[in-house]
Amino acid sequence: MKEKEELPKLEPNYKLWLEHDGEYVFGPGAYAILKSIDETGTITEGAKKLGMSYRYAWGVIRKIEKKLDVKLLHSYKGGNVGGGGADVTDFGKSLMHLFSKVDDEFSSAVEEHRS
Amino acid sequence: MKEKEELPKLEPNYKLWLEHDGEYVFGPGAYAILKSIDETGTITEGAKKLGMSYRYAWGVIRKIEKKLDVKLLHSYKGGNVGGGGADVTDFGKSLMHLFSKVDDEFSSAVEEHRS
Repeated sequence: MKEKEELPKLEPNYKLWLEHDGEYVFGPGAYAILKSIDETGTITEGAKKLGMSYRYAWGVIRKIEKKLDVKLLHSYKGGNVGGGGADVTDFGKSLMHLFSKVDDEFSSAVEEHRS
Repeated sequence: MKEKEELPKLEPNYKLWLEHDGEYVFGPGAYAILKSIDETGTITEGAKKLGMSYRYAWGVIRKIEKKLDVKLLHSYKGGNVGGGGADVTDFGKSLMHLFSKVDDEFSSAVEEHRS
């Protein structure tokens, strides 16, 4: 066994999620997808930016919508070539906000304790 | 889909662990076991208090000791009937301390955001 001078350094890490009635609903993956859709304005571009397929990204979000019976995205058809897009709903934004707020506080706590 | 008044409340939850070289080492289970051994003074009593077998509790701790090549427990033989016991080493205590410090900060952050 090791001497005190060479004791291994351990660092905190975590997973954060949002739950409803004790059930996992919204985690880092869903957060990243909503954020990317919010930034790009479409599911296609948002998914692409994360290296995901449209089908996968939309599946993640739809699963949450079904669980909660609330829309996170509002899709619309546009007038331009290839127009149309998706907006994150107010409720979707409230989840993003809650997640990122707590995540920021967790990150700070962890950073403080990294050696 | 639901009206604004009946939007579901989501609450943050998390899992915290300590890692070494990016590998999971020490989580809430190990923390509870060390704490219980520290409080009771023996692996047998510590495990019992958590409703675990001696074999399971000691297995969790031994696995971490092997991974890190550092002792978390110091066992000794005692003079009394059924004597002997286990002390948490300084290194074990430093892990407990780090884990509970960050966990307290996480709990506070989560509590703040519970509705």
